[in-house]
Amino acid sequence: MTRFRAFWSAIAAYLFILLSAGLAQAADPLPSWNDGEAKTAIIDYVTKVASEGQPGFVPVEERVAVFDNDGTLWPENPMPFQMAYAVDETKRLAATDPRVAADPMVKALLAGDIAALMAGPHHDGLLHIIALTHSGMTVDQFRSQVEDWMATAKHPRFGVRYDQLTYQPMQEVLAYFRANGFRTYIVSGGGADFMRVWSQRVYGIPPGQVVGSTARVTYELREAGPVLVKTMDNLVVDDKAGKPAGIHASIGQRPIAVFGNSDGDKEMLEYGTIANPRPSLGVIIHHTDAEREYQYDLNPQSSGKLDEALKQAPERGWTVISMKDDWKTVFSPQ
Amino acid sequence: MTRFRAFWSAIAAYLFILLSAGLAQAADPLPSWNDGEAKTAIIDYVTKVASEGQPGFVPVEERVAVFDNDGTLWPENPMPFQMAYAVDETKRLAATDPRVAADPMVKALLAGDIAALMAGPHHDGLLHIIALTHSGMTVDQFRSQVEDWMATAKHPRFGVRYDQLTYQPMQEVLAYFRANGFRTYIVSGGGADFMRVWSQRVYGIPPGQVVGSTARVTYELREAGPVLVKTMDNLVVDDKAGKPAGIHASIGQRPIAVFGNSDGDKEMLEYGTIANPRPSLGVIIHHTDAEREYQYDLNPQSSGKLDEALKQAPERGWTVISMKDDWKTVFSPQ
Repeated sequence: MTRFRAFWSAIAAYLFILLSAGLAQAADPLPSWNDGEAKTAIIDYVTKVASEGQPGFVPVEERVAVFDNDGTLWPENPMPFQMAYAVDETKRLAATDPRVAADPMVKALLAGDIAALMAGPHHDGLLHIIALTHSGMTVDQFRSQVEDWMATAKHPRFGVRYDQLTYQPMQEVLAYFRANGFRTYIVSGGGADFMRVWSQRVYGIPPGQVVGSTARVTYELREAGPVLVKTMDNLVVDDKAGKPAGIHASIGQRPIAVFGNSDGDKEMLEYGTIANPRPSLGVIIHHTDAEREYQYDLNPQSSGKLDEALKQAPERGWTVISMKDDWKTVFSPQ
Repeated sequence: MTRFRAFWSAIAAYLFILLSAGLAQAADPLPSWNDGEAKTAIIDYVTKVASEGQPGFVPVEERVAVFDNDGTLWPENPMPFQMAYAVDETKRLAATDPRVAADPMVKALLAGDIAALMAGPHHDGLLHIIALTHSGMTVDQFRSQVEDWMATAKHPRFGVRYDQLTYQPMQEVLAYFRANGFRTYIVSGGGADFMRVWSQRVYGIPPGQVVGSTARVTYELREAGPVLVKTMDNLVVDDKAGKPAGIHASIGQRPIAVFGNSDGDKEMLEYGTIANPRPSLGVIIHHTDAEREYQYDLNPQSSGKLDEALKQAPERGWTVISMKDDWKTVFSPQ
């Protein structure tokens, strides 16, 4: 009898060790993050708000996490990917439509005369290019054009499709938050219609959880069925103070976790973290890795200037991520 | 051996009968609906789109159902409940603020001079009352005012709180659709901020799934923390052709099931059901029950005119619900 008991005890102990090791391994929700303050801050926060009965617990209905896209979930260099789309699409249109090719701003773009596009206080040339490539068509036509582009266009430095350049550590954060009852939203200055084409496939974020810049669409019942035509009217830019306003318009709830990377995210970081009755988390991705990605803050190559938000981070308690130091890998495996 | 087998067969048969009876009972997802074409159409549709491997199956990501609110999920008589809020709130403000009391349009309202409020092509008096009661405050102040009102105000005919007047058959439809993988959205001409105060509690619909009329909010970082101030700028009315546009702006997906009750819902019924590559369902609630609720279509007492949509229903394949004939009970139990 004793021998039997000893035998089963040994087996039980062995199974327990195996199981514990397995659990410990499975329990690292952020394997692409180096151990350190940043990783600890994120895990401690999620553990706190998701632990029922503990101080800091937040009901699941209020677990709203918002993520900037360009520079936070994927790169924004050498230009925001949507701008690359506008450039490629302009070229495509100019190649087939002589009226487009004759357009002075299209000529400037094709000649690489960025100064002409950016002239004037409202960057009229740039807006003209955006209008050319983002209005006048139905939302279905726009969607299929973006899909075609995304399936073929390659990033000039990395040589892969743009949607293959999402940050693996942030994909893990998205999955980790969702596994803990959070609804994850994109809140970006990019166009909502542009992002919704691939948000579900690329980030697991459904179109209804994408908050971005918008303009009015007009409804028409045509012979072939109902359509929505994209216009440039009522343009609402979802950036800076527009981000809290966009969050309110689309989500109607105050987020408790906010991830951004630039001064364009400062107001939504404030909105989520200052005087919030719930425990909150503010995170800034600092682009510190010239080798694996890009290095910039005060003087970005394109968008993504980070100055005020970085200065305020210590006082506000925002966690600053150094891509170089905190991330084991940068891009998601293809 | 044979005796044993017979015994167990009898037990199995008995258990089978018990179980089948239990399942059949549990299987009526719409107990407040009378049996009939309308109920059958709804159940057949949901069964079809949710049956994996069958023709008509729709992936869960595309199961989007939209519901008008006033007249579809709760009454809109003697006036839309939000209008009752505006009236009561105006009285409250007039009682404490002499400047409000001296306002000519407030005087007209307090005197019951509806004609004065509705004068002019844009109903300037009415818009003035809406502005008085729906702008200038923070979204948090507005929310707590609506909460206070909803907790105390009583419907003039039924004598209960307004949020106690939701239609039980529609509550069952909401639950039934959600149980079958649908995301349920409100798409209403009412104010998004007004509905989001109680949408989760009353319908189980989170604020982010409420699409309604909106105006710009402005972000401010005040001493006490960040606030959003309600304005009347950029007013976007989520009605008629504004509904498909609002659905696109907030959901970014075409719905496959649409419930409405008036011509204000015609365009979203078209948008969901005409030339939709997925099987779709369009439903019109026809107010035919003067005794238990109200009876109107061409000449409603307030909002809710139903003419064109009703005429088009047979050709479009929209299911028309007669409240009087199809609903066993009207209001949810208190």
